[in-house]
Amino acid sequence: MFFASDNGAPCPQPVMDAMLRANQGPAMPYGNDPLSVSVAAMIRDVLEAPDAAVYLVATGTAANALALATVCPPWGAVFCHEDAHVQQDECGAPEFFSGAKLLTVPGEHARMTPAALQSVISGQGKRVVHAVQPGAVTVTNVTEAGTVYTPSEVSALAAVAHAHGLPVHLDGARFANGLVATDATAAEMTWKAGVDVLSFGGTKNGLLGAEAVVIFDPEKAWEFELRRKRGGHLFSKHRYLAAQFEGWLQDGLWLDLARHANAMNARLSAGLSALPGVGLINPPQANITFATFPDPAHLRAKAAGALYYAMGDGKARLVTSWATTEAEVDAFVSQIAG
Amino acid sequence: MFFASDNGAPCPQPVMDAMLRANQGPAMPYGNDPLSVSVAAMIRDVLEAPDAAVYLVATGTAANALALATVCPPWGAVFCHEDAHVQQDECGAPEFFSGAKLLTVPGEHARMTPAALQSVISGQGKRVVHAVQPGAVTVTNVTEAGTVYTPSEVSALAAVAHAHGLPVHLDGARFANGLVATDATAAEMTWKAGVDVLSFGGTKNGLLGAEAVVIFDPEKAWEFELRRKRGGHLFSKHRYLAAQFEGWLQDGLWLDLARHANAMNARLSAGLSALPGVGLINPPQANITFATFPDPAHLRAKAAGALYYAMGDGKARLVTSWATTEAEVDAFVSQIAG
Amino acid sequence: MFFASDNGAPCPQPVMDAMLRANQGPAMPYGNDPLSVSVAAMIRDVLEAPDAAVYLVATGTAANALALATVCPPWGAVFCHEDAHVQQDECGAPEFFSGAKLLTVPGEHARMTPAALQSVISGQGKRVVHAVQPGAVTVTNVTEAGTVYTPSEVSALAAVAHAHGLPVHLDGARFANGLVATDATAAEMTWKAGVDVLSFGGTKNGLLGAEAVVIFDPEKAWEFELRRKRGGHLFSKHRYLAAQFEGWLQDGLWLDLARHANAMNARLSAGLSALPGVGLINPPQANITFATFPDPAHLRAKAAGALYYAMGDGKARLVTSWATTEAEVDAFVSQIAG
Amino acid sequence: MFFASDNGAPCPQPVMDAMLRANQGPAMPYGNDPLSVSVAAMIRDVLEAPDAAVYLVATGTAANALALATVCPPWGAVFCHEDAHVQQDECGAPEFFSGAKLLTVPGEHARMTPAALQSVISGQGKRVVHAVQPGAVTVTNVTEAGTVYTPSEVSALAAVAHAHGLPVHLDGARFANGLVATDATAAEMTWKAGVDVLSFGGTKNGLLGAEAVVIFDPEKAWEFELRRKRGGHLFSKHRYLAAQFEGWLQDGLWLDLARHANAMNARLSAGLSALPGVGLINPPQANITFATFPDPAHLRAKAAGALYYAMGDGKARLVTSWATTEAEVDAFVSQIAG
Repeated sequence: MFFASDNGAPCPQPVMDAMLRANQGPAMPYGNDPLSVSVAAMIRDVLEAPDAAVYLVATGTAANALALATVCPPWGAVFCHEDAHVQQDECGAPEFFSGAKLLTVPGEHARMTPAALQSVISGQGKRVVHAVQPGAVTVTNVTEAGTVYTPSEVSALAAVAHAHGLPVHLDGARFANGLVATDATAAEMTWKAGVDVLSFGGTKNGLLGAEAVVIFDPEKAWEFELRRKRGGHLFSKHRYLAAQFEGWLQDGLWLDLARHANAMNARLSAGLSALPGVGLINPPQANITFATFPDPAHLRAKAAGALYYAMGDGKARLVTSWATTEAEVDAFVSQIAG
Repeated sequence: MFFASDNGAPCPQPVMDAMLRANQGPAMPYGNDPLSVSVAAMIRDVLEAPDAAVYLVATGTAANALALATVCPPWGAVFCHEDAHVQQDECGAPEFFSGAKLLTVPGEHARMTPAALQSVISGQGKRVVHAVQPGAVTVTNVTEAGTVYTPSEVSALAAVAHAHGLPVHLDGARFANGLVATDATAAEMTWKAGVDVLSFGGTKNGLLGAEAVVIFDPEKAWEFELRRKRGGHLFSKHRYLAAQFEGWLQDGLWLDLARHANAMNARLSAGLSALPGVGLINPPQANITFATFPDPAHLRAKAAGALYYAMGDGKARLVTSWATTEAEVDAFVSQIAG
Repeated sequence: MFFASDNGAPCPQPVMDAMLRANQGPAMPYGNDPLSVSVAAMIRDVLEAPDAAVYLVATGTAANALALATVCPPWGAVFCHEDAHVQQDECGAPEFFSGAKLLTVPGEHARMTPAALQSVISGQGKRVVHAVQPGAVTVTNVTEAGTVYTPSEVSALAAVAHAHGLPVHLDGARFANGLVATDATAAEMTWKAGVDVLSFGGTKNGLLGAEAVVIFDPEKAWEFELRRKRGGHLFSKHRYLAAQFEGWLQDGLWLDLARHANAMNARLSAGLSALPGVGLINPPQANITFATFPDPAHLRAKAAGALYYAMGDGKARLVTSWATTEAEVDAFVSQIAG
Repeated sequence: MFFASDNGAPCPQPVMDAMLRANQGPAMPYGNDPLSVSVAAMIRDVLEAPDAAVYLVATGTAANALALATVCPPWGAVFCHEDAHVQQDECGAPEFFSGAKLLTVPGEHARMTPAALQSVISGQGKRVVHAVQPGAVTVTNVTEAGTVYTPSEVSALAAVAHAHGLPVHLDGARFANGLVATDATAAEMTWKAGVDVLSFGGTKNGLLGAEAVVIFDPEKAWEFELRRKRGGHLFSKHRYLAAQFEGWLQDGLWLDLARHANAMNARLSAGLSALPGVGLINPPQANITFATFPDPAHLRAKAAGALYYAMGDGKARLVTSWATTEAEVDAFVSQIAG
């Protein structure tokens, strides 16, 4: 009964197999090996973006921070939801790498509405030299609340950003979960919706530690490469980042993994919400359920070995992954039922 | 005939096996899993440093930059050799993470002498508020020239640093190669010689991408953790960093790998230096040979598929690794011989 | 009818006289002249703080940013009101100098309550390594809304900060206006109330461009000096910063200037609030009045040459200074009356 | 006998008079007052650069650091002489503001030759992503050694920079002294010679604390304004910076002041070099003399109240200013003569 986080799951065998395949003989370092080149092409294919610049890093925080630094100047404001991962959970990494200031937008279930985004940008836009300048918009999808923006919702936010001349970053730490939740293609969720730069998450969906940054307009590519190196995020044995993506993208495995995680979450939230005394806090649209249940239910679950994040006041954050089993879900629901 | 870099080598099977063993079931993220805890203990054992703070990151640049940022203030000077990796090959990462300024010390074969270090520190020490303040000393061992400091030589440099109240960092990207070259223990090369913080390199000696930062006085441990997170260098699936070290430290594999690399380098440099028209530029004390040979020899080697760094003016940098074979070495020498 | 800002006023003659007196013969640069030394002592006397470290800079933004950088680490959170000058009007300078992240506290009339501050700090304090760590509290007094904290109110905020181990900075850009509004001594408003570091503003109260940073525990003094130099804020001809303070502190001139500014503001707000159709937005406790009046009144005032900040929706910010005259005030009120 | 520094001199009366003239009535802050606008135009006239962006700051370190940050990216290398003020005497401010790394060029008498500059840039230019990228060249004129580049020498350095696509910054802390030493116009020494951005120093030549940054291609103007504010270097009462330049530029006073300083230096160096046992270290081409003389001469001079920088080993740095008198010079020479 492991619901602590999707980054607590192991890695699927095809990913490990790709690592083993990559572990043959010498290879030029720093991404100059054939596998790294071909995996970048695979990612461009997935995104239907033949001109995009694609770079691999090992952590989601690195992906977000480097991506934002590349599109937002040091005197810029990055607009994000007040619960966004970049605001809450990256210990200031986006600010450290970019020099920018994060300005937050309120909104239910960790979602920004176009109107709310517009209001915050407009307010800042009037501030002349004394204030940081509107610099970029970052959208987290799947959100921290487990909700999902559809491509058209992303598009509406991007339209607000672009109307102010601002680039749009998508924090896709759970990108695959969002795609399968909305039945969208990767292209529809990103550049077709106005996204300029993407953090394409892999770690939370089965990789050991690999994320891609995709810059749809490659003019900033060289700058990104220098920022990555200067941030200590350029891998010498780059093939092992590439191999993870290779095993994961082949035959659509990455989407299958996300479908499974979402399905387990649906089973979990359905099971829980059918119980008396249990409430769902946000619509569980991807692979995270936020629920409230009574203290005795918490105690029973913990005693039975369930691992999850108890947030106080009876609230729980429950995350499913590609490795979650129906049996785990059912056992957990059964413990909560009492 | 791959002599381009030791980071072009694959990883030994025991390391991959450890990865596969670690890939079982869920594990708490961010280093809170049992394997990560036990591997930190293994590293403390190797260093005979039971109180040391031990942290894993994925790249050598991250290890160096975070280590220096932790011990040197933003208005500090980091003293290093003018050919040091931190000065030449990290795209300003040490400065980015620390805010400090690198001031360089000359010296033959990429080595600082205590007298030269003393002279540069003393010169800077007189500069009052207008200049950056002496902040830290960093020693690269094995050096970029492939030479090695013995523990007593490290100790002599550390004595100069400590006399000025400066902490000592050891950039041990090739730490194991240095240990086997000098027949020193890890403790003798580090804290017993006055080293305060160590970048304990793994990647160049067989790991996929893992380095340890060891802070011998753990007072700065929490600061390091925050700097690591803020730099995007905290892995969520931390067990896969730990597993690399586990497979590598067990049964002294890491030292065996380094012994092999150094032996292949000794064979290579001996073979080359016996040839007419070939010169060695630096004493090849670890796993790197810098040699000069005539252009036709370069052409023959390249034509035969040899990969190495041709530096112009007939110079070559040749790096051996745990995966280099005698046959590769002999074939290369044979090509150069013509 | 100049109500645009108190920094639009000229400088009183005694300040200019002190500049002329200082302009005699050579003087050692960088603060090593007798006048700079004696003015620092004058400031310590005013604050009844014989051990305090006192430094002069030329702008309020520099004072705040350097002060916060000295007391808050780069991974820290600076808690401030959401309307604070450091958050709204310094173009990210506090973040640039400190590396810290500003986290805001809501509150009516630009004032934090101890309970609101406690709530925000506590929320952040639970965030372990993934979030910035509570680092410092900064209190703006006089606030951006023209309201004033009494010493006991500052003390209550400082008690919350200190209970969390956080240092307290007071942004006193309008320090003198706050003192005379509350009839407090400089000591009562600062260290006796728990303030650890003070931006002692001069420019908005009659100086050409000079502010003092006072660090009550001088352990951080040398760090501040280096940060000031590194920020380009150490004046070579330091005597001209010192002279401003000398002319201003002598015979209590600085408090007389503030009393006049506050009196003019009281006259203004009383005059306006007596008019039909005019409303006051915040309690005008120092030298700033925020008022609403109908558009025709705005038009009349502007046509008559009044200068002030029209904020939209009928709102106006009106700032009085040491140089504001009763005639200006009465003429303005008369225009608004119509 | 004050030869400690030109920034130890007071300010000439016309500058103080301009300050007093500016101190009349209210003025819009932050440079939006008529005097600030007209002074910017005066500076453009002096430079024959009608399109240049002109900004005032209070210190030379701020001018240099902000100028370099505006033209060099964070991953860039700024090439400068190893004795340059930006390298030696600004406590890392250029690095702090720009993020760039300073790489030094050797050269006699603090002067770079085009060949030496070319060599260092070319060496760095081959370093791909692992090294900082060539970013900018900064030339100090008058140099720290008191030598002067002629316009054609500046032009030769700029040609090297431009051939590598690098912008050229001129650190003109002693700009006027350089102009009168070479009989060049401000335009000839700057944009006509290929300079892209200028730190136009005032403080060392008679101002209280004011420097202009001139960006000849104004495309970066808005970025500079934001960097200035974010650095705490935008003055609210900006008129007092502008007034200094007004009084100083009128009727060519600034050049007269520099001529006097240079003439006093010529008298000083001539007097000293005629003495037995006295040597000049660098050609004294502007207002600084570096000389060696025996210890007894040092003792006599110090006993007689002479203030100057004794550098050890019998060396002295002697700086003259607009305020130096012939009597001071002669008295000093007389003391050294014994």
